[in-house]
Amino acid sequence: MKEDVSTVGAASPGELLRLLRDGVPRTRSELTAVTGLARSTVRARLDALLDAGLVSDGGSEASTGGRPAGRFVFNARARVVLAAEVGATHATIAVTDLAGTPLAEGRFEQDIAEGPDVVLPRLVAAWRSLLEDADLDSMRVAGVGIGLPGPVEHSTGRPNNPPIMPGWDGYDVPGRIGAEFGVPVLVDNEVNLMALGEHTKCFPEAEHLIVIKVATGIGSGFISNGMLHRGAVGAAGDLGHILAPHAGDVPCRCGNTGCLEAVASGSAIAAALRAKGVEAHTSADVVALVRAGNLEAGQAVRQAGRNIGEVLAACVSMFNPSLIVVGGTVALAGEMLLAGVREAIYRRSLPLATGNLRIVPSQAGDDAGVLGAAAMVVQHVLSPDVVDRQLA
Amino acid sequence: MKEDVSTVGAASPGELLRLLRDGVPRTRSELTAVTGLARSTVRARLDALLDAGLVSDGGSEASTGGRPAGRFVFNARARVVLAAEVGATHATIAVTDLAGTPLAEGRFEQDIAEGPDVVLPRLVAAWRSLLEDADLDSMRVAGVGIGLPGPVEHSTGRPNNPPIMPGWDGYDVPGRIGAEFGVPVLVDNEVNLMALGEHTKCFPEAEHLIVIKVATGIGSGFISNGMLHRGAVGAAGDLGHILAPHAGDVPCRCGNTGCLEAVASGSAIAAALRAKGVEAHTSADVVALVRAGNLEAGQAVRQAGRNIGEVLAACVSMFNPSLIVVGGTVALAGEMLLAGVREAIYRRSLPLATGNLRIVPSQAGDDAGVLGAAAMVVQHVLSPDVVDRQLA
Repeated sequence: MKEDVSTVGAASPGELLRLLRDGVPRTRSELTAVTGLARSTVRARLDALLDAGLVSDGGSEASTGGRPAGRFVFNARARVVLAAEVGATHATIAVTDLAGTPLAEGRFEQDIAEGPDVVLPRLVAAWRSLLEDADLDSMRVAGVGIGLPGPVEHSTGRPNNPPIMPGWDGYDVPGRIGAEFGVPVLVDNEVNLMALGEHTKCFPEAEHLIVIKVATGIGSGFISNGMLHRGAVGAAGDLGHILAPHAGDVPCRCGNTGCLEAVASGSAIAAALRAKGVEAHTSADVVALVRAGNLEAGQAVRQAGRNIGEVLAACVSMFNPSLIVVGGTVALAGEMLLAGVREAIYRRSLPLATGNLRIVPSQAGDDAGVLGAAAMVVQHVLSPDVVDRQLA
Repeated sequence: MKEDVSTVGAASPGELLRLLRDGVPRTRSELTAVTGLARSTVRARLDALLDAGLVSDGGSEASTGGRPAGRFVFNARARVVLAAEVGATHATIAVTDLAGTPLAEGRFEQDIAEGPDVVLPRLVAAWRSLLEDADLDSMRVAGVGIGLPGPVEHSTGRPNNPPIMPGWDGYDVPGRIGAEFGVPVLVDNEVNLMALGEHTKCFPEAEHLIVIKVATGIGSGFISNGMLHRGAVGAAGDLGHILAPHAGDVPCRCGNTGCLEAVASGSAIAAALRAKGVEAHTSADVVALVRAGNLEAGQAVRQAGRNIGEVLAACVSMFNPSLIVVGGTVALAGEMLLAGVREAIYRRSLPLATGNLRIVPSQAGDDAGVLGAAAMVVQHVLSPDVVDRQLA
């Protein structure tokens, strides 16, 4: 009878690896006892994992008389992961190990509107030189993770009607990048990946959290029950186009009026300041003015915070998160934005939902997206199913 | 060395049961092959499950010459589940099998405000007579599931500051009911359980869905990645107290103004009709008027639908669900409410998020909550960990 290892996880090499990923070295006997597998099965599965380099011999148990028993541990340095967060005007790239820990990082300016045929080859070249500069070019690549500034159909890795990415709609990003490295390529919205990065690296204990990015535009990512919530077509977290309660009829680039983004994004704040005769064109200008003590800029950022908080208050009632993380360029203005956000959330939400709610600035900062991209790849390539298929 | 079956699921009796819950009868040899477990282990685990009645002998394989091999299947009739949905003014109770299929049902009027010391003993008596009347009183009870009309801390089963439930705050519901039956008791908010009921029984393919209940009050339940999203303190889904964009300064019973519930709930619609000289006091009155063709009632319900839709539009942008299910008494007014909901959602949401969105009336109807309560218990008592602990 043919053995179908994919049906029941725990008996497979992938499940054995999942067990070992806790970092505790174990002997063959311990693994046999813990899993209930036949000794011969444990031996075969361990051999497969050792051959693949995913498990290494972690040294011998202190002898209790007999032959010393070898102990086995997960080897996070068996492969590298290539990760990138591509924003509208920049890219952050990294090479990480299989624990998602960065081994090398880089950042450069570029324009997403140049289209995939320019941007993607540039990413590939940047990863290759990063690997070379860090003496990692002999390492095997396990997978590639990319965050893009628009909705992405995660199952296919294709951008889905992205508003600020001409030439990208429906583009086969995994096909293009996969042809270069011959490994799985996963693509997602950059704010989803910021949420995954903050969650895995900074707030693993928060089961339900919202990460909001306030920059040129406004977006958010949402972790539910410890998992990224992408939504039916990868469009979840689109906070920027929710009706802001006191926005009036301000027109938005989406074609609607009164969207949060039209009153509280970095560009909206800059426009409001210009209308008052204050010179400001970008989020960075706004932040610089606030830091320089410009009163009107400070008031404008605080009011943007209130507008954002009023929309987030609805999310708090709906999700009951334990944590809201505020990131993006405008968040660099510091407490001024957070104070507005907190004020509106506490005014509009039920006490029960805000009793234990923390509202904090981003911890991972500029690295949140790229760390999330790496975490997404690690989750995938070390999932029992994928490991089993690789070793079959 | 002590065997720790809780560490790795698949080797345990509970994991073997999970495998068999797909309903396919399997022989010992097939189970050995599929799991990779030692033959003796499979035999011991099957014996434990057979002894507990959770697996039964599903007949013999057609003989291929040798001794016929017995085949084993999950036995959903091994135990019964007691389920209840308790609303403000009524209770629906059921006895189901371990597949969550109702074997007997009942419904009665009662007032939640009488407090737990009156309501809970009444539930117990109602279940006992339901078991007796259906000749099920010899069956072993696996667990009890209860839905209550307020926030519940799911991990403890205690109501958490429920606004319309005097005497229930922090009450140990599982302690009281567990003392009667000596089995696990799980408690949740009734709208969460409506969502679970609609999801498990009517829309299992929808990974991301929102169920909204429009009755005396307004609440919702939310399924993310196929799992109920309860939130940090069990307060998720509180749609009724989100600021409705065009509600003005209408005071709400929560102490705030402009809440959705204050303008679009059954009682708010009835109040608005009374102000126009139309006699209406309850959701049922409103529905009767709409069905009788009363123009003002029809317009009021449609406007409530628009208000609800404007708040749901924010949820659509945030969650990107594939499905919104509209239930509760007011929904019995039919297309009038749904039309208003759809109108506002399509006007306020991005095309990407609404392209494949379905907005439908409740399919499980009055049974949604009680079916969800049973599903919650089945998920728990048949989870590998719980089965393993029971059989240990």
